[in-house]
Amino acid sequence: MTKHADLPTPADFARAVRAHGGGHPKGRGEVYLVGAGPGDPELLTLRALKLMQCADVALYDNLISPEVLDLLPPTTERIYVGKRRANHTMRQEEINALLVHHARAGKRVLRLKGGDPFIFGRGGEEIDTLSENGIAFEVVPGITAALGVAAYAGIPLTHRDYAQSCVFVTGNLKDGSMDLDWPALARPRQTIVVYMGLTGLPLLCAKLVEHGLKPAMRAAVIEQGTSETQRVVTGTLKSLPRLAADAKLHGPTLIIVGDVVRLRERLNWFDPRAAQASAPAVRARIRRRA
Amino acid sequence: MTKHADLPTPADFARAVRAHGGGHPKGRGEVYLVGAGPGDPELLTLRALKLMQCADVALYDNLISPEVLDLLPPTTERIYVGKRRANHTMRQEEINALLVHHARAGKRVLRLKGGDPFIFGRGGEEIDTLSENGIAFEVVPGITAALGVAAYAGIPLTHRDYAQSCVFVTGNLKDGSMDLDWPALARPRQTIVVYMGLTGLPLLCAKLVEHGLKPAMRAAVIEQGTSETQRVVTGTLKSLPRLAADAKLHGPTLIIVGDVVRLRERLNWFDPRAAQASAPAVRARIRRRA
Repeated sequence: MTKHADLPTPADFARAVRAHGGGHPKGRGEVYLVGAGPGDPELLTLRALKLMQCADVALYDNLISPEVLDLLPPTTERIYVGKRRANHTMRQEEINALLVHHARAGKRVLRLKGGDPFIFGRGGEEIDTLSENGIAFEVVPGITAALGVAAYAGIPLTHRDYAQSCVFVTGNLKDGSMDLDWPALARPRQTIVVYMGLTGLPLLCAKLVEHGLKPAMRAAVIEQGTSETQRVVTGTLKSLPRLAADAKLHGPTLIIVGDVVRLRERLNWFDPRAAQASAPAVRARIRRRA
Repeated sequence: MTKHADLPTPADFARAVRAHGGGHPKGRGEVYLVGAGPGDPELLTLRALKLMQCADVALYDNLISPEVLDLLPPTTERIYVGKRRANHTMRQEEINALLVHHARAGKRVLRLKGGDPFIFGRGGEEIDTLSENGIAFEVVPGITAALGVAAYAGIPLTHRDYAQSCVFVTGNLKDGSMDLDWPALARPRQTIVVYMGLTGLPLLCAKLVEHGLKPAMRAAVIEQGTSETQRVVTGTLKSLPRLAADAKLHGPTLIIVGDVVRLRERLNWFDPRAAQASAPAVRARIRRRA
């Protein structure tokens, strides 16, 4: 077990940037569309952390972890624009208008998105509105959930022996069905990553089998991936819906389907339970095998 | 145009971590499989930067930019294990064995991979060998080329109106052909990202049309994405091979195929030529649309 408390924390980095001063000048009015990664503040990029420190106002939603939000300067105005399924706090058009409003007022506006802004983040729509209104913007990519979760669950998304392609989709249910291209998904040697698919998991698994994947094909659901409350449930297309229900998972979750899931048996290195058992400041990341 | 020179650089961060001291203790022998992102050092994660600072030895390949490599402590031993197409400097088995060798000698071994270690990085194979040998390891996700390039080229990989799925493949030519599942790729409302596909670009475009995509479908090749030498060539499946040949592109490149490519006309914000024209310390990232 490894002590990490004696390395600088993300908060140390944030303070260092602020002490350094400078950065983007005030009064120009511009927007930073920034991917905040899957939750662990250490998975922020340097660029994201820097732009966070010069934001006059930050718009964020419920995929932004409290630990990431804590890295904003205390003077930054925070606006929650979270969207929840079937209960949108704010409509997309309102968010777009807010970005324009604050930038027009000369503010440095941070739009913080969970994961990566261009993977199911509707970031394209937000900057399209900025572009139409002649407002300057910058896009910072982030660790999308698929990459973060795969790394911390020990499941390589591609592998020479098991997967030559990897496809990302969303699994939102609409009127009890999923608008997915099943024949394109149910292919050999492909890893499928499903965002927001927990509610529809039984349908997802049934449809993939109906379109040709074996019921014994491995699949996993990961809850709160990369965090110290991460839980991973693995099974097959046949067994996973029941196993996930028994585990009483609730979002945010990610589903991975494909032969690569079996590699987790050997490659699982992140043991959050060990971390939880230690003092909060001591973070165990490396599990010794033997 | 924005001055960024007065914000701390990645090198400032690296020095701060080293001055802080501590970190992983010596002598345990462990491996950090770290994604270094697409090249811009500011797209490193905080976690990657921290682990780089405590490495006794670093194994890297030709996808690691000199700017990223410069962030290693001067005392870290550097071993080039680069692989080039048809001219492998070191075989995968040798790399795996080297990781085991140095970890067994009690060293903190950094395995630095371009992009993300689990997306076409063969990272899974490397840690599989470590697992077999009972060596502790940790995996740090990185900004894979697709995400970095999309952000800096102004091409959202998913978009409610244009793409509900995104698929990653490699386009290596083998005996003049590409081992890809064409019917699964040539689908409506899907973005295709092709890693390492420049040599086979004419074949790629022809095959996608043969399997049902329109010749007028938009496509782009991005060379040196996210860097200040980034070049983007956009066209259609019909025109792109010729346009790319005329532009005399050479790797590393990434190919994006899909309706989302048209959004670049409005969402292109990164203008590396402006940056190149200014003093080196002044980095222009935000293009004013006026």
